Amino acid sequence: MLLLVAGGADGATPDSAPAASNVPGAQTPSIHADGRVTFTLEAPKAGTVELAGGDGLGQGPFPMTRQGKGAWSVTIPAPVPGFHYYWFMLDGVRVNDPGSRTYFGYSQETSGIEIPQPGADFYAIRSVPHGQVREHWYLSSVTGEWRRALVYTPAGYDDHPTQRYPLLLLQHGMGEDESGWTRQGKAQFILDNLIAAHKAVPMIVVMDRGYADPPGAAPFALSDNLGLAAIRTAFTRFEAVVMEDLLPSIDRSYRTIPDQAHRAMAGLSMGGMQTLFIALRHLDTFAYIASLSGPVSGGSDANQSFGASLGARFDVARAYDGAFADPAGFNARVKLLWMGAGSAESPRLRTSIEGAVEALHAAGVQVVYYQSPGTAHEWQTWRNDLNDLAPRLFR
Amino acid sequence: MLLLVAGGADGATPDSAPAASNVPGAQTPSIHADGRVTFTLEAPKAGTVELAGGDGLGQGPFPMTRQGKGAWSVTIPAPVPGFHYYWFMLDGVRVNDPGSRTYFGYSQETSGIEIPQPGADFYAIRSVPHGQVREHWYLSSVTGEWRRALVYTPAGYDDHPTQRYPLLLLQHGMGEDESGWTRQGKAQFILDNLIAAHKAVPMIVVMDRGYADPPGAAPFALSDNLGLAAIRTAFTRFEAVVMEDLLPSIDRSYRTIPDQAHRAMAGLSMGGMQTLFIALRHLDTFAYIASLSGPVSGGSDANQSFGASLGARFDVARAYDGAFADPAGFNARVKLLWMGAGSAESPRLRTSIEGAVEALHAAGVQVVYYQSPGTAHEWQTWRNDLNDLAPRLFR
Repeated sequence: MLLLVAGGADGATPDSAPAASNVPGAQTPSIHADGRVTFTLEAPKAGTVELAGGDGLGQGPFPMTRQGKGAWSVTIPAPVPGFHYYWFMLDGVRVNDPGSRTYFGYSQETSGIEIPQPGADFYAIRSVPHGQVREHWYLSSVTGEWRRALVYTPAGYDDHPTQRYPLLLLQHGMGEDESGWTRQGKAQFILDNLIAAHKAVPMIVVMDRGYADPPGAAPFALSDNLGLAAIRTAFTRFEAVVMEDLLPSIDRSYRTIPDQAHRAMAGLSMGGMQTLFIALRHLDTFAYIASLSGPVSGGSDANQSFGASLGARFDVARAYDGAFADPAGFNARVKLLWMGAGSAESPRLRTSIEGAVEALHAAGVQVVYYQSPGTAHEWQTWRNDLNDLAPRLFR
Repeated sequence: MLLLVAGGADGATPDSAPAASNVPGAQTPSIHADGRVTFTLEAPKAGTVELAGGDGLGQGPFPMTRQGKGAWSVTIPAPVPGFHYYWFMLDGVRVNDPGSRTYFGYSQETSGIEIPQPGADFYAIRSVPHGQVREHWYLSSVTGEWRRALVYTPAGYDDHPTQRYPLLLLQHGMGEDESGWTRQGKAQFILDNLIAAHKAVPMIVVMDRGYADPPGAAPFALSDNLGLAAIRTAFTRFEAVVMEDLLPSIDRSYRTIPDQAHRAMAGLSMGGMQTLFIALRHLDTFAYIASLSGPVSGGSDANQSFGASLGARFDVARAYDGAFADPAGFNARVKLLWMGAGSAESPRLRTSIEGAVEALHAAGVQVVYYQSPGTAHEWQTWRNDLNDLAPRLFR
């Protein structure tokens, strides 16, 4: 342990700093000047402690080693920049890091770490006019429950009380909730910066909880074995919440422009699936449609499993109940169809998305494809996506 | 274990329901019809697991027992109604319950449970017009950092763009942050309900992070041994943030009425100390001053420890740099001085507050004292407090 005591490899050192995602005062996780990250946990009686996490943290789990009286520690190679979920396995029990804020992911509160990307300030809070993120509560006629959405209003919204704005409905991924896009994604700062630079038009962004399970039912959970019919049932219920409860409630409370030309829907991963499912059934409502790392449903066989459907050839005429069957008609109604994926995402997902893009393109459907460079199925992809997408909306 | 298998004592049973503070789908903590609560944790390799928590959960820690393959469980006697922080001690390591949302308390993310109070709906979300809670980011000239405050705007704020509103600055307690009053306290629903019933006037409520530590410094932590001089230094820095950064920023962004008659400051526990410290030095800014379970500083001896100061006689002439030395003048300037405590709080704290109230009253200073019935140093006290206080403001 001499090397450790001599400094540099583990713990807080002059060349390291606490992560921005830490709770105030927590010294670890700490990020070293060379990008390596040190994690610690006090657990004097533990037999084994490991560090594990989501895509982007690196090839874990990482065994931690006991330092002295009971502090366990590990320093991992520099993760890719961005936001990564993580947790500790404490004698096999998944626990959070008391040094980290928690973020809703994996259907529970989960630690997260923000790894800075040198030179990237598009998602930083900067000295530009800031919009506001507001809690919006509404009673759902579909679920019978009060639901919370978050609503971004652009800078100047209160100063121009007669101005009306277009609306982007922006959805999170599986296991996350309505807080993901602002807490993990920093969507409000991305939009503040784009709008201040006149790269995007001022818009209202609505972020809702993408679940509409019947009260008391087990929460919807996407898995390879789940049938497309079950997914359709769940998404149809969320579609009803969006169309019958959420959008009317937003239109009553905010100065939207409630026509098709001023409505967009986008979502990441499961939210991308929901976007394609819902928006393609409501082309009279949404003129802009974007799927960020969203698995694409190629056929229309309700008996197929979700996992199997990812490998299916994209059938332009039949997919999404024939929404693309008339490419010229589709192009005339839809101002933007956008699909994206990170270049480091799984081949299976990229193939699903890129196969659809190629088939649509070949059939004459106008579609924009954006590839986030070097990023996987993680928030840095979706931050890059939003930064590419938002400037294309409502032009 | 026959009794347990026979049902009723542990686990999800027909007579129990998941707590409203659980993450969606989590079956425990579950609250039984008779008010008892069952907690569980999966920890197959653990040697000991205990349940512990804040005031109001009951006389813990509660040992948990292993059920079958590795689920640990305990059912505790009915806690008092309200919100209670809790956690598990897993072989001595404090960990959160994956079944619970987390709430910022004890300077970290902490599990919490909401115990319903039969018949009490003053803090429930109801079918009344709702205000909004908004994120407000501002750059502090004092700390050099971007800070987040939360701002409640009352129902109708956007519909009446020329109407201006009084402002209540409402602060959290030690170890909590700006999210406490809305997430733990449900302040937005208390105000929605009071305003809808015309019991309180529509007002803007600003909730800030009550710390202003220099970047990189150890976070301020209140303790019995801390000297009053150190507390004064920390509060003076937060005072500067409030007066120089926060209030001017709010006045620029929201339609306040920026005069003394339309400004209130209130806070709970440490926030109550801050309220008395700051507002009593700025009687030209605040006409309404409320300390909710806030320890009162009786003397003015900077060498005294915080703990010792709680037992000191309240010296009306000298306390708070002589703010009360001229009772008639004070009464003429200040429209409301309000102090509150729960009837089940520690005698030490209640004596500190009630001693001050008695001394002030005897000296002719007008002061309202409110005692929350049967509640301790916990959020149910502060919900009751706000419900009593808000109707007295700006009348």
